[in-house]
Amino acid sequence: MPRSEPEFVEALKEEASAFPLWRFHNAKVERPKVLPHVWRWSMMERFAQEAGDLPELKGQGDRRALVMSNPGLKMPFSGATKTLTSAIQIVWPGEIATAHRHTPAAIRFIIQGNGAFTVQDGERFIMDQGDFTLTPSFVWHDHGNLTEKPMIWLDVLDAPLVGYLDASFFEDFPEDEQPIIHPEGYTNVRVGHGLMRGLADRPAHNRPLPVTYKWDQAYGALRDFDQSTPFDGVAMEYINPITGGHCMPTVAAVLSRLRPGERTGAHRHTATTIYHVAKGSGFSIVDGKELAWSKGDTFTLPSWTWHEHGNGSSTDDAVLFSVSDLPLLEAVGLFREEEGNPQQVTGSFD
Amino acid sequence: MPRSEPEFVEALKEEASAFPLWRFHNAKVERPKVLPHVWRWSMMERFAQEAGDLPELKGQGDRRALVMSNPGLKMPFSGATKTLTSAIQIVWPGEIATAHRHTPAAIRFIIQGNGAFTVQDGERFIMDQGDFTLTPSFVWHDHGNLTEKPMIWLDVLDAPLVGYLDASFFEDFPEDEQPIIHPEGYTNVRVGHGLMRGLADRPAHNRPLPVTYKWDQAYGALRDFDQSTPFDGVAMEYINPITGGHCMPTVAAVLSRLRPGERTGAHRHTATTIYHVAKGSGFSIVDGKELAWSKGDTFTLPSWTWHEHGNGSSTDDAVLFSVSDLPLLEAVGLFREEEGNPQQVTGSFD
Amino acid sequence: MPRSEPEFVEALKEEASAFPLWRFHNAKVERPKVLPHVWRWSMMERFAQEAGDLPELKGQGDRRALVMSNPGLKMPFSGATKTLTSAIQIVWPGEIATAHRHTPAAIRFIIQGNGAFTVQDGERFIMDQGDFTLTPSFVWHDHGNLTEKPMIWLDVLDAPLVGYLDASFFEDFPEDEQPIIHPEGYTNVRVGHGLMRGLADRPAHNRPLPVTYKWDQAYGALRDFDQSTPFDGVAMEYINPITGGHCMPTVAAVLSRLRPGERTGAHRHTATTIYHVAKGSGFSIVDGKELAWSKGDTFTLPSWTWHEHGNGSSTDDAVLFSVSDLPLLEAVGLFREEEGNPQQVTGSFD
Amino acid sequence: MPRSEPEFVEALKEEASAFPLWRFHNAKVERPKVLPHVWRWSMMERFAQEAGDLPELKGQGDRRALVMSNPGLKMPFSGATKTLTSAIQIVWPGEIATAHRHTPAAIRFIIQGNGAFTVQDGERFIMDQGDFTLTPSFVWHDHGNLTEKPMIWLDVLDAPLVGYLDASFFEDFPEDEQPIIHPEGYTNVRVGHGLMRGLADRPAHNRPLPVTYKWDQAYGALRDFDQSTPFDGVAMEYINPITGGHCMPTVAAVLSRLRPGERTGAHRHTATTIYHVAKGSGFSIVDGKELAWSKGDTFTLPSWTWHEHGNGSSTDDAVLFSVSDLPLLEAVGLFREEEGNPQQVTGSFD
Repeated sequence: MPRSEPEFVEALKEEASAFPLWRFHNAKVERPKVLPHVWRWSMMERFAQEAGDLPELKGQGDRRALVMSNPGLKMPFSGATKTLTSAIQIVWPGEIATAHRHTPAAIRFIIQGNGAFTVQDGERFIMDQGDFTLTPSFVWHDHGNLTEKPMIWLDVLDAPLVGYLDASFFEDFPEDEQPIIHPEGYTNVRVGHGLMRGLADRPAHNRPLPVTYKWDQAYGALRDFDQSTPFDGVAMEYINPITGGHCMPTVAAVLSRLRPGERTGAHRHTATTIYHVAKGSGFSIVDGKELAWSKGDTFTLPSWTWHEHGNGSSTDDAVLFSVSDLPLLEAVGLFREEEGNPQQVTGSFD
Repeated sequence: MPRSEPEFVEALKEEASAFPLWRFHNAKVERPKVLPHVWRWSMMERFAQEAGDLPELKGQGDRRALVMSNPGLKMPFSGATKTLTSAIQIVWPGEIATAHRHTPAAIRFIIQGNGAFTVQDGERFIMDQGDFTLTPSFVWHDHGNLTEKPMIWLDVLDAPLVGYLDASFFEDFPEDEQPIIHPEGYTNVRVGHGLMRGLADRPAHNRPLPVTYKWDQAYGALRDFDQSTPFDGVAMEYINPITGGHCMPTVAAVLSRLRPGERTGAHRHTATTIYHVAKGSGFSIVDGKELAWSKGDTFTLPSWTWHEHGNGSSTDDAVLFSVSDLPLLEAVGLFREEEGNPQQVTGSFD
Repeated sequence: MPRSEPEFVEALKEEASAFPLWRFHNAKVERPKVLPHVWRWSMMERFAQEAGDLPELKGQGDRRALVMSNPGLKMPFSGATKTLTSAIQIVWPGEIATAHRHTPAAIRFIIQGNGAFTVQDGERFIMDQGDFTLTPSFVWHDHGNLTEKPMIWLDVLDAPLVGYLDASFFEDFPEDEQPIIHPEGYTNVRVGHGLMRGLADRPAHNRPLPVTYKWDQAYGALRDFDQSTPFDGVAMEYINPITGGHCMPTVAAVLSRLRPGERTGAHRHTATTIYHVAKGSGFSIVDGKELAWSKGDTFTLPSWTWHEHGNGSSTDDAVLFSVSDLPLLEAVGLFREEEGNPQQVTGSFD
Repeated sequence: MPRSEPEFVEALKEEASAFPLWRFHNAKVERPKVLPHVWRWSMMERFAQEAGDLPELKGQGDRRALVMSNPGLKMPFSGATKTLTSAIQIVWPGEIATAHRHTPAAIRFIIQGNGAFTVQDGERFIMDQGDFTLTPSFVWHDHGNLTEKPMIWLDVLDAPLVGYLDASFFEDFPEDEQPIIHPEGYTNVRVGHGLMRGLADRPAHNRPLPVTYKWDQAYGALRDFDQSTPFDGVAMEYINPITGGHCMPTVAAVLSRLRPGERTGAHRHTATTIYHVAKGSGFSIVDGKELAWSKGDTFTLPSWTWHEHGNGSSTDDAVLFSVSDLPLLEAVGLFREEEGNPQQVTGSFD
């Protein structure tokens, strides 16, 4: 006499490490789900300052990071999205992180302070407020704060993605610091201010460079650039200067300037995005709810979330810095985008 | 008076939806981990036959799939790897799945039976034993078994990856079956047996085609091809005939023929692979443990696992069909590979 | 007192090896100009047979080629177009060309005879009527006719282009014949009948292969393929099976089947084309003049010439084999195309 | 009785518009051949100034160009190479060329004067000494000199190549001048100083931009860049800032700085190059002959010519600006390069 379906299912699971598809279709599977969420600067800064004073972390600026955990993701140490982490890091004067490299790539956007340094592939880069630095996969890097004041920055890593792909590798450099073999400004020179490049650098060698994009240059370009895009205001993408493509193969980064009073159209797409408010204040309409933001706030928008942005000021620019997993979605042919009508606002985020 | 570190951590978590990086570094985080595992044909076939008799599933061949769940992945309905599911599906004579499409892409490798059909983009494909069929992302498809005997096949989908990327979309076709608008064999003609292509099909249009690769042709090519690769015997990759690249942007598929007595070298790489034994029997050495396999067995090798293969017969070919997430690792620059020495065998898989 | 303009011009030319632009603009410069032209098979075959009997050429089948010289090109030994030569070659039983290689690439389309051979990169290819063989740039090759009957084929080389670019290199193989290191059919196996490829062959290695495209397969594909293009009937391009792109970087080759009574639309484009009638008879309208053609005829259409084609038979297929410099025009961004109305016929070609 | 071979050949030529290959192989065909040649600035400037005074050309600055004609090319109005023309153009204060576009692409390198303008695609570019301007294929452009002094520049066009490919098209703009729709500096902003780009500009849209590369920025990059290449000193390529590739699909442009006393290695390649001395003086060894050069001189090196360069000064930089047809050779797979030993000098150029 045959087993019943429940007996069959149990045996299948126990004996064969398999499950029946029909149970899956009927099941209410609760999966972690990225939620739109905002991490307020007022709160994050307070915690960051307090973390700066914790005696347990003295001298350990590289571990003094507050990692934003998406409330929709259930894992103990989840990131801001499923592919990316973002964290507020505070580095005290005199703190130095020793040289190492890892396959997760990192970016850093300076929130407060001027003059911290990072050394990458033998070149020292100075990081000031608003600057955006790439640490591509497996580039030797070390960094520190030799100024008189604390530095605060936003760290974004593709560590969750690299972990998901089981491709994490880590190495310490044999010395605390790597030797400096290039003069400051070398990479900018090597890419000829974007109009030339060294004969040895061909686009086919698409390993991303450890570029630092200066705020003055980036925001200056946005101020000079006079054309708005439909959904992002006056927006430019930070590029890999050798290939002209995305800044790294796992992350795209964009700086969007909303002119005084500017309001964008609504769209949704399958890339998940982390926004950080670089300047000014305004609001986004996110699946019908208003999300007010101002300088220093960080917020995420999940895949396929309707969104539109507005500058709340009639006199000053508002500037959003954002990173997303767009290159990944494109690479596997799963990027899709839909334009929408202006949304009705039916609620708001805290 | 300042809070203690534990008080700080608790407040950070509760009030700010964030966690401190220093706790993460010290934590023993138990994460789901793909394990090497073998699903024996002897057991899977027995369950498949039994599932074929379950009255609950009468006429529902598209749900009668036994999904292999990697024992290292803790989620209730996890796949064979973190990016791919694989399942044994048994379709009874007369069962038909109605037409639909979804963003997860599927492949099917026929284990038993001849003459089932699938219709994709208006073309009917007949599937016989050993055939390998692509259902690319968002292609309309329906399939069924109008023969007198049950068909058994291996289904592999990139559904876990698409779910991870929050890019799942599904649509039913307005009718049960889609109209057939091309003669049988149309796609093979359209790609001119690999030597020509229709003027309208340019490599730049890289949407993968719903190709069926016939066993006789594929295995025939491997028998004729006289060169062994270092790690895979006589091996050829199934390609997208328009672009010459991987068969789909998320999945690479390879057919490997181990000649009688042939034994490969050892290597490891960051692509995770699902192997299915298409013919013969043999063994793999997996991180020092022997994994014996014979026709119908399915096994997974996680990222960065040492492996080498051997044909156990001195007279007959052994053939492995395998699929992996190689294209994804390549796209994000995280594919790496290492050659090794022949491994010491220190144990074996059940 | 200053020189007059004519004195100035003379001095500039003599002393500075320069000329004044203003003289160029006023000059009626007579430049060589590709004309549409047809080389009739009835005439070419008669000459080919007569050349076969010339005692001066006994045993020298590789030199017994009648090179079509475009009447609009004034140079002593000009080709059929400015980028390509085409020639009728007759090879007597027993004649063998010794092994060599050169940077100009060649293609061969067999007009008459079965069973000649060419050896390329260590593989012997048999060439029968209607077959189309590639000899890519700098591939070692030798060929011969070991059958009982003469073979006649059409040879097309990009030698004028390579000469124009000053990139001609030639080498004799150390032996008369190169060793055969692969079994017959190896390349077709290596490219897995277009659906697979050896693991070592990646599209990035875009050196074209020495493929032979069999007539039965190529014409068979066209008979099975049921979709007409606007300007070329049922048309497929012969491709590089590794990359899916043009068969060679300097030459695109197309086989066009005009179904009984089929007539195409009119267009013009900047690629210059050589047509060879592979089967049947019909006509083209070329800048308003009718060009009747039948099997064996060869004709050229210059850049930016209006053309449309018709099959003269209501019962049989007409098939045009054509080669053009399209890949070159595309590579430099100078390909353009314009669709036109059906042309008024106001005359005809001889 | 059969015809003799000479009778046969004559008939073939007359009746069939064909020639026998065996005659070609035996013939001493005299073909135009690019020669290494130098056009001295001392002479070209004298002629340019004199041309500026010719009453016939009053107000016609766009026709007052002295086109360098390679002494090895026999055609009445041949260019400096087979693919490129180069000319010295002198434009008088107040002279304006009306707006037009053509498929030949142009570049301009300013030899003398500051402040001329060109308008391209609605943006006005100011051209000063040492600046390098692109006019890509079929971009509307007009230019003029509204300063108080004459301007002298070097013009290079790919007109011979476009003519060879029979792909020349020309159009006058409906008005004398095109409207200016972008602010000055727009393109540099649009490409974000090479580190960003407007969201609408994707590398896939590879139509080259009408960029002006400023001397201060280009030479500044070379002064800062501290690495010598084997054959070109400290050398950088001017790139298409959107794609990172060559500045145009038909022309590559390089700026090479030879440090005081620097001497390069010897090589030869199949790209044909036009050099213009932008600064300083030095020498090249060209197939064993010394070619001394100083500021303003222009010289060509044909395909496959051995060459090495030296800076004649022990205190000052020497800078060579060069353009070549490298992209074309690469596109068709005919670029090859060979490294050599330092050459014995056995003579010299005038």
